[in-house]
Amino acid sequence: MQKKSRYRSNCPINYTQEILGDKWSLLIIRDMMFMGKRYYSEFLKSDEKISTNILADRLGKLEDNGIVSSRLDEQNYSKKIYSLTEKGIDLMPILFEMIEWGLEYNDKTIVPPEFKKQIQADKAGFLKYLMQAVRKQQA
Amino acid sequence: MQKKSRYRSNCPINYTQEILGDKWSLLIIRDMMFMGKRYYSEFLKSDEKISTNILADRLGKLEDNGIVSSRLDEQNYSKKIYSLTEKGIDLMPILFEMIEWGLEYNDKTIVPPEFKKQIQADKAGFLKYLMQAVRKQQA
Repeated sequence: MQKKSRYRSNCPINYTQEILGDKWSLLIIRDMMFMGKRYYSEFLKSDEKISTNILADRLGKLEDNGIVSSRLDEQNYSKKIYSLTEKGIDLMPILFEMIEWGLEYNDKTIVPPEFKKQIQADKAGFLKYLMQAVRKQQA
Repeated sequence: MQKKSRYRSNCPINYTQEILGDKWSLLIIRDMMFMGKRYYSEFLKSDEKISTNILADRLGKLEDNGIVSSRLDEQNYSKKIYSLTEKGIDLMPILFEMIEWGLEYNDKTIVPPEFKKQIQADKAGFLKYLMQAVRKQQA
């Protein structure tokens, strides 16, 4: 739920930054989007080593902001399963551009070769394909 | 200058986020890119009300990261003039996507009507045009 004056200005870049802005939230979204992660324990295993308290806090914030939704896993009722909402999936073009810029300007960064090839061959088509794939996976 | 192990992982999204990640750096870039701001005093006047110490710190970091360069203003040697580097200008596609997402999901956010119209009419062409315009302006 959006409260009045919650954001620092009415600039759309500022809004997007306030939602994505902290260093961890974006990595959780990345893990859901590109690595198919959906469980708390999976998010803990990323290279950047998020701590449990930060992870719990950021998942809560992402839910509050309507980027992520959660439900109990039908296969195991003691576990929560997290999904990206449509609003969350729509962040993919931003992440795509971040991947390209990162690869361009830091040659230590890597993505799977197949991923890079697809971006280079047909970025728009690959983006559309991946968004559709993530949409299906979250359902 | 990039040091070894400076970043949390070799993920390009993580790298881009670490460079852009704090809430203020991106707004300084936005101001240079879309509002033609080039002076310290101009950055202080944004809606989000950045404080002087944060501004000085973030301009320094942006210079360290090769996003921004600075020189003394030839018209007034007591003033520094800041420019976006090519690496900085290349961030524009990310900001474009952030604008679109922000406008889509927060109806309190606004951009000049002409800007919105151009994005809707021909995003790729408008992006290219603007990057070229910023390039000329920074020279």
